[in-house]
Amino acid sequence: MTNKNASKHSVGIVGVRGYSGLELARILLKHPNAKLAACFATDSKFALSDYLPEESAKGVSVAALADLPAIAPELDTVFLATPAEASLELAPKLLAAGCKVIDLSGAFRLKGADAQATKALYEKWYGFEHAYPELVEQAHYGLVPWSGPVPKDKRLVANPGCYATAALLALLPLVKEKLIRSDTLVIDAKSGASGAGRKAAENLLFTEVEGECLPYKVGAHQHLPEICGYVDKFAAGAIDPLFSTHLLNVRRGIIAGLYARLSEGVSAEQVTKAYERHYGEYPLVRLQAGLKLKQVVGSARAHISAHVDKDKLYVFSLIDNLLKGAASQAVENFNVLHDLPVQLSLTSMEGLL
Amino acid sequence: MTNKNASKHSVGIVGVRGYSGLELARILLKHPNAKLAACFATDSKFALSDYLPEESAKGVSVAALADLPAIAPELDTVFLATPAEASLELAPKLLAAGCKVIDLSGAFRLKGADAQATKALYEKWYGFEHAYPELVEQAHYGLVPWSGPVPKDKRLVANPGCYATAALLALLPLVKEKLIRSDTLVIDAKSGASGAGRKAAENLLFTEVEGECLPYKVGAHQHLPEICGYVDKFAAGAIDPLFSTHLLNVRRGIIAGLYARLSEGVSAEQVTKAYERHYGEYPLVRLQAGLKLKQVVGSARAHISAHVDKDKLYVFSLIDNLLKGAASQAVENFNVLHDLPVQLSLTSMEGLL
Amino acid sequence: MTNKNASKHSVGIVGVRGYSGLELARILLKHPNAKLAACFATDSKFALSDYLPEESAKGVSVAALADLPAIAPELDTVFLATPAEASLELAPKLLAAGCKVIDLSGAFRLKGADAQATKALYEKWYGFEHAYPELVEQAHYGLVPWSGPVPKDKRLVANPGCYATAALLALLPLVKEKLIRSDTLVIDAKSGASGAGRKAAENLLFTEVEGECLPYKVGAHQHLPEICGYVDKFAAGAIDPLFSTHLLNVRRGIIAGLYARLSEGVSAEQVTKAYERHYGEYPLVRLQAGLKLKQVVGSARAHISAHVDKDKLYVFSLIDNLLKGAASQAVENFNVLHDLPVQLSLTSMEGLL
Amino acid sequence: MTNKNASKHSVGIVGVRGYSGLELARILLKHPNAKLAACFATDSKFALSDYLPEESAKGVSVAALADLPAIAPELDTVFLATPAEASLELAPKLLAAGCKVIDLSGAFRLKGADAQATKALYEKWYGFEHAYPELVEQAHYGLVPWSGPVPKDKRLVANPGCYATAALLALLPLVKEKLIRSDTLVIDAKSGASGAGRKAAENLLFTEVEGECLPYKVGAHQHLPEICGYVDKFAAGAIDPLFSTHLLNVRRGIIAGLYARLSEGVSAEQVTKAYERHYGEYPLVRLQAGLKLKQVVGSARAHISAHVDKDKLYVFSLIDNLLKGAASQAVENFNVLHDLPVQLSLTSMEGLL
Repeated sequence: MTNKNASKHSVGIVGVRGYSGLELARILLKHPNAKLAACFATDSKFALSDYLPEESAKGVSVAALADLPAIAPELDTVFLATPAEASLELAPKLLAAGCKVIDLSGAFRLKGADAQATKALYEKWYGFEHAYPELVEQAHYGLVPWSGPVPKDKRLVANPGCYATAALLALLPLVKEKLIRSDTLVIDAKSGASGAGRKAAENLLFTEVEGECLPYKVGAHQHLPEICGYVDKFAAGAIDPLFSTHLLNVRRGIIAGLYARLSEGVSAEQVTKAYERHYGEYPLVRLQAGLKLKQVVGSARAHISAHVDKDKLYVFSLIDNLLKGAASQAVENFNVLHDLPVQLSLTSMEGLL
Repeated sequence: MTNKNASKHSVGIVGVRGYSGLELARILLKHPNAKLAACFATDSKFALSDYLPEESAKGVSVAALADLPAIAPELDTVFLATPAEASLELAPKLLAAGCKVIDLSGAFRLKGADAQATKALYEKWYGFEHAYPELVEQAHYGLVPWSGPVPKDKRLVANPGCYATAALLALLPLVKEKLIRSDTLVIDAKSGASGAGRKAAENLLFTEVEGECLPYKVGAHQHLPEICGYVDKFAAGAIDPLFSTHLLNVRRGIIAGLYARLSEGVSAEQVTKAYERHYGEYPLVRLQAGLKLKQVVGSARAHISAHVDKDKLYVFSLIDNLLKGAASQAVENFNVLHDLPVQLSLTSMEGLL
Repeated sequence: MTNKNASKHSVGIVGVRGYSGLELARILLKHPNAKLAACFATDSKFALSDYLPEESAKGVSVAALADLPAIAPELDTVFLATPAEASLELAPKLLAAGCKVIDLSGAFRLKGADAQATKALYEKWYGFEHAYPELVEQAHYGLVPWSGPVPKDKRLVANPGCYATAALLALLPLVKEKLIRSDTLVIDAKSGASGAGRKAAENLLFTEVEGECLPYKVGAHQHLPEICGYVDKFAAGAIDPLFSTHLLNVRRGIIAGLYARLSEGVSAEQVTKAYERHYGEYPLVRLQAGLKLKQVVGSARAHISAHVDKDKLYVFSLIDNLLKGAASQAVENFNVLHDLPVQLSLTSMEGLL
Repeated sequence: MTNKNASKHSVGIVGVRGYSGLELARILLKHPNAKLAACFATDSKFALSDYLPEESAKGVSVAALADLPAIAPELDTVFLATPAEASLELAPKLLAAGCKVIDLSGAFRLKGADAQATKALYEKWYGFEHAYPELVEQAHYGLVPWSGPVPKDKRLVANPGCYATAALLALLPLVKEKLIRSDTLVIDAKSGASGAGRKAAENLLFTEVEGECLPYKVGAHQHLPEICGYVDKFAAGAIDPLFSTHLLNVRRGIIAGLYARLSEGVSAEQVTKAYERHYGEYPLVRLQAGLKLKQVVGSARAHISAHVDKDKLYVFSLIDNLLKGAASQAVENFNVLHDLPVQLSLTSMEGLL
């Protein structure tokens, strides 16, 4: 399947030891058009092959973050699998060094009407001062397939949040075609614990999480303005839903339940057709598919299933939070950025039984 | 704590080997006003003490179901921890034998406007023909504390369903005080796997359930008409919510998320006050308490927490599906039926860390 | 990677809806030298693509078991992912129809000194009467890499048991080189619940298994004589260990702990060398590798780690019970049977993070 | 059950926010002869009632560790639910203040032949320098019921380790009666994750532990010398077993598998009788009981089951690591220290279904 003559883009991953970083490395090591030239981690005293079974992982060394400036000029594209504050600091430098940047954090996702509004959004939802609001404006929000090609003048991609991806994929066909009464929209999303990252924290200990389905940041999750903001592009001011987020005692996988009343006169068939129309050509969404998280964990696909009962609409959207919710969508963005087929190197990834 | 002179009611449990049956036995063995005189199971070849640590469990033998008619006349109160079809068959016979009956199944919960309507409800939601619609009419639906005393002429109590209990406890103060726009109400409930009972079934195998948060019977769960029907008593025709039910990969515990828009002008304080008003005197609801399932698992309490953000209302209601959702509420009904304090023998039950 | 000109062997799977059957199908659908021509299941009313994400899965229909005789003559090799009793009945018929048979059950694994002894072994350890003891004699026990090439006159392969595989891979270098005092050998093995198969059973319900590490068949597991019997080939009468088996509350993965005292004068280095000598050329064993089950789940590899402290030897052997313990080893046997590289189509399978 | 006239001992808990500390508080709040006068934690900004459902928990305030010296003189008995280093520092001061001390850490468990040997043991197994080896000598190792009454001159109790408790309860009858060949003894123990305490650590994150049965500190766990040292009291130099410890993906519970060859001529009946003889009078060991962890989790009991097959002996010992392995045994030691019935306030604690 690999094209020996494919032009290989030299890529780097910052934050490779995190869960998304490792999944990125796993995918890029097999990508026909990428050469994983450099990996960086705050703690660089580990071998990638401790985590990844590919023989090729043995050849990739992990450098300290301090080495990034020296190596950056040799990299075509850098993936930032880092916390938002770190991404905020690294992205401008990498762009200045001539790199393309695909950022998996939230640092460049929330766009206000102007720089001041952008800063206010970050102050409110992320709790930090955003020093580069103009970079947010320049960033391409890469929700594939909705975001389309990356404009030629853009070199920074904001990879969407995991909950935002699950919710938006299910929501956009509905909103764009005005199928639901948006004042009735509720999103109840549940995520596996890997979504919280690989950072020691008492509340994420096995003993704490086991046996739970724990609401957190209720109505206050930073993916809410991300969702509303992106829906705005397709229907201004359309939604301000109730948004509830839970920590599941599973390792991986997000299931978002979207609930709404249909607009007057809308039929179940119209809902079905809307999804088919928007995802018929896109290989990484599967419609009316299974509702088991295991079926998407390990896969780059989203499963979306809609069920209509009179005017009640129930939609479930399932993704692997580390893949379509992070690493594999970042690779889709890499593919888009380099005019490659969007699903390149991603369709063979499989869920579990 | 035990009153040696307490009059002891002779009680029996049918279906004692099921999860709810065992929890019932555990509670009744310690109840100061109950004497667990007889237990029945389809497979009676096991000792109660295999499951229950109490020394007293050793003294209780388990009889075959066939022995029930002979023993029934000696029993004051019989708990039916049996499937709805079995309860439907047993309850009339036990009532005829002079027993009081507390049924933990759904067999007597759905009341239509008349016998025909009741039969239609059972046909639709339970899929069986209900041979005794008049018994449903005579049954007391025992949602404590809302259901109040059992009328003296009633000897059959329909113990509420687990989801219905979690949802109604959170919902009734809101509906009664007209605090929410009921067309915006969504209930997203999640239950531990023990809710499905102790019956061999492929879809409930560990390997199937592990790693999942699995929607099932979406919009079609039989507890939906139970919820709507009981709300009707307090505000006719008030609600027809979206109702979504999930199987969690946890053993015990239900968390129901209730989402709605507040009615025009309603404040957060009004919500808080409504809950305090309705549950201030009732020792088995804890308000604004923790959101961890472990805190209610093993306990007879419900935890209800409400959060208001502008006109958005988020309420979480947590119970142990086998206790407040089944066995301990059945004992509350026993207490009510015998004019005992509602919480007798239940407050010392504790959740886990 | 696929060789377009590869000669494709027509293969069938019986019992495809079980966990091992599905994993077999997943692998064979990608195998360059196999064409998955037919699948069979007792309940054939399901689509393979409900479980498997490969596009190619859509093309494979599932037939009823009754159709097997008609289709068998067209199949080169048939995999039996069936219970031992079913395999016992099917294998002779398939061999008579000219097929090669790779049986994943225990039906042909226990060889006595003669037919009578074989029958006695099955009576004792499997509890059934073995009607074809001579077939056991003709079967090739396929523990790769120890079992070597399949003799040309053999068309029936007994694929090893999951515990037996984990234990034997760790044990054979030790026994062959006389490194341990065999009277001190203890094997404490733990398996994920999928090892019990996909059959409704009360004791395998989520609610029963969750929270447990449950000993079962202590000292009486049928893989014990399988282990001892195969060790006999390399050192007659060498071992009769304590063998303890546990059900873990994990879905997949086996970890076998092997504990023994080293023979007089044996050093840690000798142990290390023994493993290196026996597995240096074999790509599906990784030595001194990680001890996490996740690292082998989804992979066709075994991880073996040995630790010596004075005369105490601790060895841990980890496999995916459904892969190296069942389906992927069956494909290794398919490869061996057809003179293909043993690891063909298996090395790219990866564990999880 | 409470004796109103019981003399109440004033007790304190240091480290109350940890898992063992909370379980201690839960038990002591109900203990008829204890008054929980003071609790201490490094982070004292929490209410005990956030974790414990008892009404009485509301009355207990949590003080900062700095307040301990001022309060200590008012306390009869102080429980140290602290890391070994902290216990080492606190115990001498508390003893000097006139308190009795029950230490749940390992700080006073390992006794060498003299002070120098004790220091060497701590250097090797705990990795710190022990400043008070003479205190170890004075400490009473409180493995109930084996340890008997506390000598009148002793005010420091070393509460046994969780693995050590599980192993020793199963082992002592065997060793004392010379039933096993000790050179063949292997202990394979598995513990729930709460055994590692409530301290943020990457390797204890839910995402890391889930799906695993992870060997750690193989042959190097500090409970090994504790086990061997205590066995020495009953049979000098008797054992030096292989000792393997695993982290289970369960919250609570330890199961220790003990494997050995019986001494020449020993029968299964002798084993059974030995256990009955030693535990017949002790209410907190249950013999030949269930093998489910759930049955001991939440209970103060140990379950011990032995199985003999020819000369092979399999024994399983199950406890709740936080109770008989920590908090409830500490309360047994409190009872012993104050000449109360050993099981006081402990027998009503129950496992789960």
